[in-house]
Amino acid sequence: MQRYKIRVAYDGTGFCGFQKQQNSPTIQGALEGALFDLDAKEVQVVGASRTDAGVHAWGQMAHFDLLQPRDPMSVQRAMNARLPKEIRVLNIETAASDFHARFDAKKKTYTYTLSTSELQSPFHRLHSLHFPHPLDLLLMEKASNVLEGTRDFTQFANTTTEKNRPPSNSRTLYNVFFKVEKEFLVFSFTGNGFLYNMVRNLVGALLEVGQKKLSFEDFKALLSPEIRPRCYTTMPPQALCLKEILY
Amino acid sequence: MQRYKIRVAYDGTGFCGFQKQQNSPTIQGALEGALFDLDAKEVQVVGASRTDAGVHAWGQMAHFDLLQPRDPMSVQRAMNARLPKEIRVLNIETAASDFHARFDAKKKTYTYTLSTSELQSPFHRLHSLHFPHPLDLLLMEKASNVLEGTRDFTQFANTTTEKNRPPSNSRTLYNVFFKVEKEFLVFSFTGNGFLYNMVRNLVGALLEVGQKKLSFEDFKALLSPEIRPRCYTTMPPQALCLKEILY
Repeated sequence: MQRYKIRVAYDGTGFCGFQKQQNSPTIQGALEGALFDLDAKEVQVVGASRTDAGVHAWGQMAHFDLLQPRDPMSVQRAMNARLPKEIRVLNIETAASDFHARFDAKKKTYTYTLSTSELQSPFHRLHSLHFPHPLDLLLMEKASNVLEGTRDFTQFANTTTEKNRPPSNSRTLYNVFFKVEKEFLVFSFTGNGFLYNMVRNLVGALLEVGQKKLSFEDFKALLSPEIRPRCYTTMPPQALCLKEILY
Repeated sequence: MQRYKIRVAYDGTGFCGFQKQQNSPTIQGALEGALFDLDAKEVQVVGASRTDAGVHAWGQMAHFDLLQPRDPMSVQRAMNARLPKEIRVLNIETAASDFHARFDAKKKTYTYTLSTSELQSPFHRLHSLHFPHPLDLLLMEKASNVLEGTRDFTQFANTTTEKNRPPSNSRTLYNVFFKVEKEFLVFSFTGNGFLYNMVRNLVGALLEVGQKKLSFEDFKALLSPEIRPRCYTTMPPQALCLKEILY
């Protein structure tokens, strides 16, 4: 048996998220389909992050085992030949048999991209959110700075099923920033892990601050485990991209 | 009556080209649909170029008349509110009543984008052609240079219906070049007009030269009205973009 570690990029537009579902196109389903006849048995692909429907990835990581070891490059070529063009295996290497794509991940980086021009380019509609409203970037920077560190992010998590609920809502954010790139405002979040919808909620709250609909003090009050009335929106998925995972 | 001149950008992926068709989504159909209830009668939109199915535009131009004159900005806002996000009216201005988007066009620029990296990014699959093969760029430059000037491009035209056939196959190309931009090779063609599929055929022939499947002499021989056996491919549409039209 040989374990493989892959880096995968995908345009999530037409997929119902990473996690396999009956009768719906998913990234995991496509990856397993691409490995279908490469081994004696069905191959199970374990992804590092369960990205939602419509969310993209440039650096999703996953692992899988082949009973019959093969040259990594030939596995990558076979997968890319079988996969739809929306999904590409960017890199492959062999891994120790106890390597786990999800549990061994140390740092993940997500980006969230706003298209801030008055008219959104038709070529970016699937990978950014049109947000042509004025924003106080200094206030937003002040708010984003308080996110760094280890905190309870309960108030930034959407409810999830009992089965998927993590044992703790404490997470460490190492780096939070945003930058203007041409007509885009790109948020970047690097942390040791993220709760369900946490990035989309953090962006939602930061945008409330930037529009002066939420004060800096009320934003800071979200960093406690005590649940208060929701004062921000969960932002839509198509602007979210899983950029990188470090081990 | 007031005539308006608009600049339109679109992602042509989901459309059957510019020209209106029964029961198929087209750019012209969408533009006319967006104007439907703005005037007392149905509005006809005249485009400068009939781009093919799957071809994109950043600078398509068109004109139309409103019996009841309106403020151009409010017409633009109304159109963008009604149009699908794949199509944006980038600019609008009033025009003289004898302005004609097609007949008055002096120069058009098309680009054709190859993605030359070994793996094509999933985010560029709809706007570039994956072409990871070695190319002799010096030979291609030599070939592209002989295209500039006024010539008969009969051998670079695909056959079209009698109705759409132009009176002459002579066209002037003012500027032909290609440049490397990150992992892309972008061809640019500026001319006073283009025959049916001419850009896609020119790129096809230049790529034959670059792959040394077609000699420079045989390439030059294509610049005569005499039809010879076809020695190149019409390249696929999704990498073609109508960049700009000058009047």
